Amino acid sequence: MSVITLTTDFGAADWFVGTMKGVIASLAPKTTVLDLTHGLPPGDIRGAAFSLAASHRFFPQGAIHVVVVDPGVGSRRKAIAVRTATAVFVGPDNGVLSWALAKEKLKAIHALENNTRFLQPVSHTFHGRDIFAPVAAYLSRGVPIHEFGPPLKDFIHLPWPEPRVRQGKIEGEVVYIDHFGNAITNLEGGLLRPSSEAACQVHAQHRQVCPVRTHFQAVPPKSPVALLGSSGFLEIALNGGSAKAALGIHVGTRITLQTASPARKFR
Amino acid sequence: MSVITLTTDFGAADWFVGTMKGVIASLAPKTTVLDLTHGLPPGDIRGAAFSLAASHRFFPQGAIHVVVVDPGVGSRRKAIAVRTATAVFVGPDNGVLSWALAKEKLKAIHALENNTRFLQPVSHTFHGRDIFAPVAAYLSRGVPIHEFGPPLKDFIHLPWPEPRVRQGKIEGEVVYIDHFGNAITNLEGGLLRPSSEAACQVHAQHRQVCPVRTHFQAVPPKSPVALLGSSGFLEIALNGGSAKAALGIHVGTRITLQTASPARKFR
Amino acid sequence: MSVITLTTDFGAADWFVGTMKGVIASLAPKTTVLDLTHGLPPGDIRGAAFSLAASHRFFPQGAIHVVVVDPGVGSRRKAIAVRTATAVFVGPDNGVLSWALAKEKLKAIHALENNTRFLQPVSHTFHGRDIFAPVAAYLSRGVPIHEFGPPLKDFIHLPWPEPRVRQGKIEGEVVYIDHFGNAITNLEGGLLRPSSEAACQVHAQHRQVCPVRTHFQAVPPKSPVALLGSSGFLEIALNGGSAKAALGIHVGTRITLQTASPARKFR
Repeated sequence: MSVITLTTDFGAADWFVGTMKGVIASLAPKTTVLDLTHGLPPGDIRGAAFSLAASHRFFPQGAIHVVVVDPGVGSRRKAIAVRTATAVFVGPDNGVLSWALAKEKLKAIHALENNTRFLQPVSHTFHGRDIFAPVAAYLSRGVPIHEFGPPLKDFIHLPWPEPRVRQGKIEGEVVYIDHFGNAITNLEGGLLRPSSEAACQVHAQHRQVCPVRTHFQAVPPKSPVALLGSSGFLEIALNGGSAKAALGIHVGTRITLQTASPARKFR
Repeated sequence: MSVITLTTDFGAADWFVGTMKGVIASLAPKTTVLDLTHGLPPGDIRGAAFSLAASHRFFPQGAIHVVVVDPGVGSRRKAIAVRTATAVFVGPDNGVLSWALAKEKLKAIHALENNTRFLQPVSHTFHGRDIFAPVAAYLSRGVPIHEFGPPLKDFIHLPWPEPRVRQGKIEGEVVYIDHFGNAITNLEGGLLRPSSEAACQVHAQHRQVCPVRTHFQAVPPKSPVALLGSSGFLEIALNGGSAKAALGIHVGTRITLQTASPARKFR
Repeated sequence: MSVITLTTDFGAADWFVGTMKGVIASLAPKTTVLDLTHGLPPGDIRGAAFSLAASHRFFPQGAIHVVVVDPGVGSRRKAIAVRTATAVFVGPDNGVLSWALAKEKLKAIHALENNTRFLQPVSHTFHGRDIFAPVAAYLSRGVPIHEFGPPLKDFIHLPWPEPRVRQGKIEGEVVYIDHFGNAITNLEGGLLRPSSEAACQVHAQHRQVCPVRTHFQAVPPKSPVALLGSSGFLEIALNGGSAKAALGIHVGTRITLQTASPARKFR
């Protein structure tokens, strides 16, 4: 079985995602297409990058991950495909693939320039339909990546906000807020030890100290809690509510975490 | 063919539903996954219970219905699988499966405790990905239900608001409001006879008498109408508009129905 | 492979779309079902008609396109299936199929009246589940179109707003506004030549002159631009924003385009 995943900011109102699936079904009828999400805010490259990084390892080996969050469509930005040891990643070269690729073993990077593999005529505003969908379909049928265009040495890397250790505190920030209002931070969970003393500070509109616990219901209803989220990062949440709404958190909100072992590398 | 349905409150913004599909595609590539809905309000156990009860009988025999509306995730609530004469139901044991199971012939109830069938490590906040998706995938591949954990005698039953017959009136309430603003009540339609005299009273913000008719356009535009809905219950609707918005209806709004034969059992 | 596409105003909150898929999976387990969109505003027949017209040609030959935007459900409006040289179109006879059919070579038009091909009992409010889904499933299994009901001579045609050439100007209007706030007009793109002088006037709340360019980023950020959209029509857009919000555009907003060759037929 061959799997293509789709991640876009196309929303659910229009025919754009369905049309990409029509193109894929026309060219690769046996391929399974799975939606990762189409609900990203328009042009939210960081949100798309995080979504893919948080999820791609849960798909079958060899999956083809297509991301179309592409505010520069029709301009001179490149379109790329990147093959790694586990999957293929396809999208505009605007950084949107880079967080998923950060921990992958890279095998090949190619520009998408061979327009015999595109839908003709290629529109200036919908490369999802005319370039990315057909390229993904051909990839899923086994067309080798080097047939789509010349090799590249690198792709655009979106800066990842590294946490900093300072005076026994780890300083991080919120990188993604989900549908429930849970705020995912850049603090990786490897060394987190939920304990009665552990706590983190949320420097949001409403400054708030959150105890570090294992699950939502470990604190009273509507109380904030910091926990190791399913993406592997510290999350600020509210038991039975939205931490975003209750604390006024936004992407970029600063978070500090007291640590018993400040000398150990957090990441 | 094997079918898994997914019902969650995960929304469309994030990668959560897509990730569950990735896990299922990895473990059971030939299984068809169908979305029932992911648009339930966060934590709306009653809404999820009604959604599944209203729809599960339209899926193929043997379908595996997975519901993840799970505000207690990570706490001590059980996870269960229930096999009936027609299907398998999988979810947290918080009542969310119980309305669909009410009319089913039960065959087996099992706790999900065999962690060799889970994704490791199991997160504390995303059992949809780490427990429910892999269990459903293995079930769809034919792994017998008793391999997932010990048998249980029962599951948690969500109370169903029974209508009451009182002084020649049937008293019910709104149990679900759909996307169109149609208000579905707990009054089953078996004995409803649309007629020129039949009417029901809506005790909402704006008290309103609704004629009982067969379809929306049997009343003038923007007028309220009571009709036998597709789920088998009396619905309060507006022809070409939202009854919820126009009448101020909410879940729990009281409804009374005059009946010519008050002695007959309504349900 | 057989493909069914679904286009509705059912939204994502309820079990309606999922139930249609359950019916199809029960009757035609090998058929692939693709969502075109379910996010149309309730009862928006024109929006549905445009969505299908803009996308149906990107699906595999023989695809069955089901549209359920059906405010007259349960009344005397007909349900129809139309076979063309490339596809089959199924839906209520309220005009919703007509824009897609306008450029198709018609082969057969049939009313859907053979209730042995419907789910019984047929509800008065959910023909998507009880009529359109089973009919599409049987069509995808090869049941010939004439088995579903008697032939018809025609179907209801939704009026298409033809652009007018007047005093060297082409006058058109906005026919659809997408998720990004891009406003698609009725001005077909065949003769559009982006140039330094080309411009169009948007007669919206905020009157605005838009340069005609090839892509969004050809103008400064947050500036309006007119371009040839992916559906083949002139679109009014904003680079990195919503033209709808910035200019106060709505469906029906008048657009005028200066043309160097007013004598040539625009469409």
